[in-house]
Amino acid sequence: MRCEIISVGTELLMGQITNTNARDIARELLPLGVGVYYQTVVGDNGPRLAAVFEQALKRAELIILTGGLGPTDDDLTCETVAEVLELPLEKSSIWEEKLKEFFSRFKRPMAEINMKQAMIPRGGTLLLNDRGTAPGIMLEHQGKIIILLPGPPREMLPMLKAQVIPLLREKLLEKGSLAVLRSKVLRVIGLGESVVAEMIRPLLEEQTNPTIAPLAKGWEVHLRLTAHGSSEEEVEELLASKAGEIKKVLGHYIYGEDEEELELAVARLLWQSGKTIALAESCSGGLLCHRLTNIPDSSRYMLAGLVTYSNEAKANILGIDPALIARVGAVSPEVAEAMASGVRRLCRADIGVGITGIAGPGGATPQKPVGLTYIALETDDFNICRRYEFWGSRLDVKERASQSALYMLYRYLIEK
Amino acid sequence: MRCEIISVGTELLMGQITNTNARDIARELLPLGVGVYYQTVVGDNGPRLAAVFEQALKRAELIILTGGLGPTDDDLTCETVAEVLELPLEKSSIWEEKLKEFFSRFKRPMAEINMKQAMIPRGGTLLLNDRGTAPGIMLEHQGKIIILLPGPPREMLPMLKAQVIPLLREKLLEKGSLAVLRSKVLRVIGLGESVVAEMIRPLLEEQTNPTIAPLAKGWEVHLRLTAHGSSEEEVEELLASKAGEIKKVLGHYIYGEDEEELELAVARLLWQSGKTIALAESCSGGLLCHRLTNIPDSSRYMLAGLVTYSNEAKANILGIDPALIARVGAVSPEVAEAMASGVRRLCRADIGVGITGIAGPGGATPQKPVGLTYIALETDDFNICRRYEFWGSRLDVKERASQSALYMLYRYLIEK
Repeated sequence: MRCEIISVGTELLMGQITNTNARDIARELLPLGVGVYYQTVVGDNGPRLAAVFEQALKRAELIILTGGLGPTDDDLTCETVAEVLELPLEKSSIWEEKLKEFFSRFKRPMAEINMKQAMIPRGGTLLLNDRGTAPGIMLEHQGKIIILLPGPPREMLPMLKAQVIPLLREKLLEKGSLAVLRSKVLRVIGLGESVVAEMIRPLLEEQTNPTIAPLAKGWEVHLRLTAHGSSEEEVEELLASKAGEIKKVLGHYIYGEDEEELELAVARLLWQSGKTIALAESCSGGLLCHRLTNIPDSSRYMLAGLVTYSNEAKANILGIDPALIARVGAVSPEVAEAMASGVRRLCRADIGVGITGIAGPGGATPQKPVGLTYIALETDDFNICRRYEFWGSRLDVKERASQSALYMLYRYLIEK
Repeated sequence: MRCEIISVGTELLMGQITNTNARDIARELLPLGVGVYYQTVVGDNGPRLAAVFEQALKRAELIILTGGLGPTDDDLTCETVAEVLELPLEKSSIWEEKLKEFFSRFKRPMAEINMKQAMIPRGGTLLLNDRGTAPGIMLEHQGKIIILLPGPPREMLPMLKAQVIPLLREKLLEKGSLAVLRSKVLRVIGLGESVVAEMIRPLLEEQTNPTIAPLAKGWEVHLRLTAHGSSEEEVEELLASKAGEIKKVLGHYIYGEDEEELELAVARLLWQSGKTIALAESCSGGLLCHRLTNIPDSSRYMLAGLVTYSNEAKANILGIDPALIARVGAVSPEVAEAMASGVRRLCRADIGVGITGIAGPGGATPQKPVGLTYIALETDDFNICRRYEFWGSRLDVKERASQSALYMLYRYLIEK
C-alpha cells in the first residue's frame, strides 16, 4: 500500500517549525508494511491544498494529512478534503459534548468558532483527542483511506499510536494486504562509516532480504536492516540471523539497537557490574550528567555530577591544588585526572570521570585551541586520560565531549 | 519568486531521519522575500524523482534539491536533474583535483566510483564543499534557478549560507525581484497562547503589515511578525514599531527575540547585575547547568552546578542534615531550600538554586506523584520556593523543571 503524508501549515513552509510529524508517521507505518512514497508540505491555502490532495489521491492509496484542524479561519484541512471528495460536513454530537466539557473544565467560555471543530465529513470515523480540541478523522472513499490528524505533535502522536495504527492494521488485514515488514537498527560506535562498510563488505554485496543500509548519524554509524516475509516469526528470524552475522564481524563496536542511545548501553553495563559513578565536568557543562540521568533508574549508579566551572570550584569542592591549576592550566591532562580522582574520592564512587576543555568560541590560546579537551577516567585498578581536539560550535564541542566520555566508559566496562 | 524544496532520500521517507534541511533552507530564504510554496520528499528512485522535479519546474521558479549527491548507485539527483533538463554531464577538473586532494589527505585510496562526484551538468556553477566530497551545483535553465545541495546538514548549511544565499541575492537583484521581507519573533514566557492572544487582540485584529502569527512552542508562546516593503530601512522600522506596541502590552513577559533562548535572557541579566550563580540539581540531572553553560562566556556568572543525585551527595557535598532528608524526604520544599542554600554557601555565589523532584517513571508514592518538583532560589535578601506538578515523560519533566527554574531566575533578576 502506497502512502502519501501531507503536512499542512504555513509555519512549516516558512521553516518556523520542523516537520517531525511526517517522520513519526513514517516510522509507525513501517511495521505495517505501508511504504511512504511521498511527503508533501503545503501552506494554509485552500486551492493549493486542494491541488496537493487531488494529486495524492492519484498516486497513493493511503493519505494522511496533519495540521489545519484548528478553530480559526486559516485552518482549512477538513473543509478542503470534504470539498474535494464532495462530502457534506455534519455535526458530531459526540465531539460537540466533548468541546463543551473541555471548555467548562478550564472554566473558559466557548466561542461559536470552536463549534467548527465538531463538523466532520459524512461517513467519517471520529478519532478522539484527549489533549486538544481538534478530533482526528478517518475516511474511506473509493478504495482510498484518508486520515486527518491535528498538527501539534503532542496531540498527533498519541492519536496515531493508539487509534490510527490499530485501525489501519485492521483495514489491511481485511484487504489481505498486511505485508509483514520489520526494520532493526544496529548502532555502531568508534568506527567511521567507510570502515564499517569495508568490514561488512561481503554482507553488503550479497544483501537481498534483509537489506542493509549504513548511515552516518551524529558521531555514530547506524546500520538499518529491513526484512519482509509472510509472518512475524519469519521476519524476526531473518533480522535476528543477519544481525548475528554482522555482530560477529563488528563485535562490541555495536553497542545497541533501534532507539537505544549510548547512555543506555553504559547504564546497562553499570547495572550489571553493580558499579557506581561520579562525574566532574567543566567544558561539557553538565551534558554528560544530563545524558546519564535520562535513563530511568539512573539513581542506581549515579551518585553525583559536579560541574566545577570556576577554578575555585575545582579547588574548593574537588580538592584540586590551586598551584597545580596555576602551573599547568585548567585545561590539561593533570587537571582532568585530578577532577576524576577528586570526585571519585568525594563521592566514594567506583568510577570517577573528569572532563576539562575549551568549548569556545572564546578562551583559546595559541597552545590551546577551541575544542581541546581532556577526559580522564579513574577506578581502583585502572586509569586513563585522553586528549581530543573537537571542532564545531560550542554545542558541538559539548556533545562530542559527552559522547567521547560515554564511549570511554563503554570501552572500560566492556573490557574490564 | 516561488520556491519548491525537494528533499531526496529513502531514509527521510522511512522516518529514519528528520527533514531539518527543508526547515533551514526556508528560514534562510525568507529575508530574500522568496516564498517557499511546497516542500516535497521523495525516495532514491529515478522515475519518481524525475516526476517530482518535472512538477516543480511547472509550479516554482526556484527549485532547491538536497540529498542524493553521494558516490554510490542509489545517489541519483544529479543524473536525474541533468536528464530531465536534457543536459550532458561534464567532468569538473576543479572538483577532480579537490577529490584527489581529499583522499590523499586522509591517506585513503580513491575508488573510481568517487569520480562520479566530479561530473556536473553542462553550464552548472560549482558550489564548493569543505566538509565532504559532494559539491553543490547551481543551474539556470529557461528562466528557472535550480540548486543541488548535499544531504548532510553539516555540509548543506554552510554551503547554503556562504554561497547559495549571496548568489541568489545577486540573481534576484538582476531580475529586479528582490522583495524586502523580514520576520521577527517575540518570545513570551509565563503566559499561555490564548491569554497572549486575548491581551493583544486589538493588534491581532488590525494586523496588515506586519502580520502577527502566535504559535505555542514548547512551554512558550512565540509571536512572529512579518513585514514587507521597498527598503530594508522601511521594513525594519515597521517591525520595530509593531514590536514596540506589543512590548507595551506584554512587558517583561517578552524575554527575547528570534533565536534567543530563555537561558540567554537570564545570562544577560546576570551579566548586567554582575551576580554569580551556583546550582544544586537533583531530578533535572544537570540540564539546567547544561542550558546555562550553552551561552558563550557563561563562566562570568556560573561558578558550579552540582547534581547531587544521591542522598549521600546531598548530605556530604551540600551539607544537608541527613535527619532532615529522612524526616521530610528528598523531594520536599525543605530540601529544595537547603540545596539552594548549601550550594550558595559552598560556592560563595550571589544566587543559589535548588531543584528536587521525581522525574519518573519510577519513584512515585501516593503522596508524591511523578512530576512533583520543588524549585528554590536563595539570595542575600530574597528567598522563594515553588511547588510544581509536571506531566509527561522523564525528559519532559527534566525540561519543564529547567525551564521553570530559568523563569524563576528571570523574574527574580527583572524584579529585584
